[in-house]
Amino acid sequence: MNIPYADLKAEFTRVLHKLSFSEYKAALCAGIFADNSLDGVYSHGVNRFPVFVKYVREGLVQAHAEPVVAEQSGAIEKWDGQYGPGMYNATLAMNRAVALAKENGIGCVALKNTNHWMRGGTYGWQAANSGCIGICFSNTIANMPAWGGKEPRLGNNPLIIAVPRQGGHIVLDMAMSQYSYGKLQENSLRGSALKVPGGYDITGALTDDPDAIMASKRALPIGFWKGSGLSFVLDVLLTAITGGNSTARITASGGEAGLSQVFICLHRPEYEQALVDEIIAYSKSGEPVTAGEPVLYPGENTLATRRRNEAAGIPVDDRIWKSIREM
Amino acid sequence: MNIPYADLKAEFTRVLHKLSFSEYKAALCAGIFADNSLDGVYSHGVNRFPVFVKYVREGLVQAHAEPVVAEQSGAIEKWDGQYGPGMYNATLAMNRAVALAKENGIGCVALKNTNHWMRGGTYGWQAANSGCIGICFSNTIANMPAWGGKEPRLGNNPLIIAVPRQGGHIVLDMAMSQYSYGKLQENSLRGSALKVPGGYDITGALTDDPDAIMASKRALPIGFWKGSGLSFVLDVLLTAITGGNSTARITASGGEAGLSQVFICLHRPEYEQALVDEIIAYSKSGEPVTAGEPVLYPGENTLATRRRNEAAGIPVDDRIWKSIREM
Repeated sequence: MNIPYADLKAEFTRVLHKLSFSEYKAALCAGIFADNSLDGVYSHGVNRFPVFVKYVREGLVQAHAEPVVAEQSGAIEKWDGQYGPGMYNATLAMNRAVALAKENGIGCVALKNTNHWMRGGTYGWQAANSGCIGICFSNTIANMPAWGGKEPRLGNNPLIIAVPRQGGHIVLDMAMSQYSYGKLQENSLRGSALKVPGGYDITGALTDDPDAIMASKRALPIGFWKGSGLSFVLDVLLTAITGGNSTARITASGGEAGLSQVFICLHRPEYEQALVDEIIAYSKSGEPVTAGEPVLYPGENTLATRRRNEAAGIPVDDRIWKSIREM
Repeated sequence: MNIPYADLKAEFTRVLHKLSFSEYKAALCAGIFADNSLDGVYSHGVNRFPVFVKYVREGLVQAHAEPVVAEQSGAIEKWDGQYGPGMYNATLAMNRAVALAKENGIGCVALKNTNHWMRGGTYGWQAANSGCIGICFSNTIANMPAWGGKEPRLGNNPLIIAVPRQGGHIVLDMAMSQYSYGKLQENSLRGSALKVPGGYDITGALTDDPDAIMASKRALPIGFWKGSGLSFVLDVLLTAITGGNSTARITASGGEAGLSQVFICLHRPEYEQALVDEIIAYSKSGEPVTAGEPVLYPGENTLATRRRNEAAGIPVDDRIWKSIREM
């Protein structure tokens, strides 16, 4: 069934109020779950909401926690998220990074002891909407092997880079594994092979069979040794700057809580819009692999989905919607 | 034959003097070519030196140019490299980013109209040696298709991330294509297949045959659509911040000159060395794919090669060495 954005957000808000979220915090978190759904990222929108509620009930996410500034030096601040809601902490941190960048040209907030921020792209769009370039990244629980290893030792550590643009912001939001476990499961349920190789089977052969990858737990880092290196170094950056938990420590703790995140903003009087539009035009100027399917820039698809869901409502699984209504 | 580091550097310095480089600039550039060779990156060290000399002679690289500060705001500076030697401009830019970070916690130098910086990792090691986290990236001429396109429209835009560490800095230096054209050629000459798929053949099938990829010009971005997006957004960032040439403009100009580069540094009183060492230990703690071949962290291999070449001299191709001696 399709649910209008306003109804979805109202339901999320109602449930969060019931969980004793403050008015402001409930509205902010409900808005992010609704926005993620509107943009087509259902896995971190409506489909994830019940899991978030469970985490709050179990105390892994602390509804009343407020982030505190642990240290301030120049255009960098170190924050402690106190295990509060990840979306709330991340929004406040990115807001502050925007303010620091508007003051200093560039600014950074390093956040430890926070929780899953749902869709990382949220904070890229936020920075760009505030007129800043935004770069942010998070660590996660270990979910893929490092290059050369067989067992999961790296997170898929999403990296987000956003650049403001009048015709629609450019927002890259990518995790370091070729496919998330959610995507592997989706493909497995449909009984379909992956579009490109997504990991190794139990014998060590590269495969596009999602079940073989889930069995071996050997998901593929993007670009083999390269994505492995990038995921590793993002975790090192996060740990070295925040002083918070690394993927190693998060994994040892058993649950995916107490994450580390970094938010960097740059502010410029202008972002050379004409030159950027030239890059987009150039990327679209060649012959496409499939006729009628042009090259897309990061964020272009999101914007198209947003327009579609604004007009037609957000597609929601009946059972999930029922479970939320009954909360 | 193996050449001691000091002899290699002396030869480079002699040739650059002859090309009317100032004493300081000749020593700096010769040092970088020698260091890159020492670290095993011969493609951007001794093997590249004759090409650099050619570029200087042809005026694509301006030996006497000095970078100028075009704009200053807070902890960001915009520089114009005036088409000077890329290694010289990049070293000065990273030095300034280090100084800005030591003043403000974080700093950025955006450099336009510069030239090829040879090995990007050079500036990561430089930042880490100066006690800073360094992040830098460059655009290049178009050398791979965007995801969904058939013709080269993206550069392989290297990204470097370095974190200081007492036991050896962590330095990631990765281009956005799975293999460079240099690597494809190396494999082609040896008649060997690539270790992993590196692009598409003329029929659009994924292949590990280097000749098939050079024929189709369809090199693979790391992680398929993901590396394509990351390469695109790095070029957008570079252009939006520096106001300089994008990959589109560099490609249109015909030669690979007038590049754009960004240097970001972060400075912290400490980099949580114990926690970082824990990440390294964790990544090495699983069962390796090949017994006796442990997981390596980015930079570990470089350091091992450096030690080897310090002891035994730098392996240099006889003909290349002869051609340099005759310059």
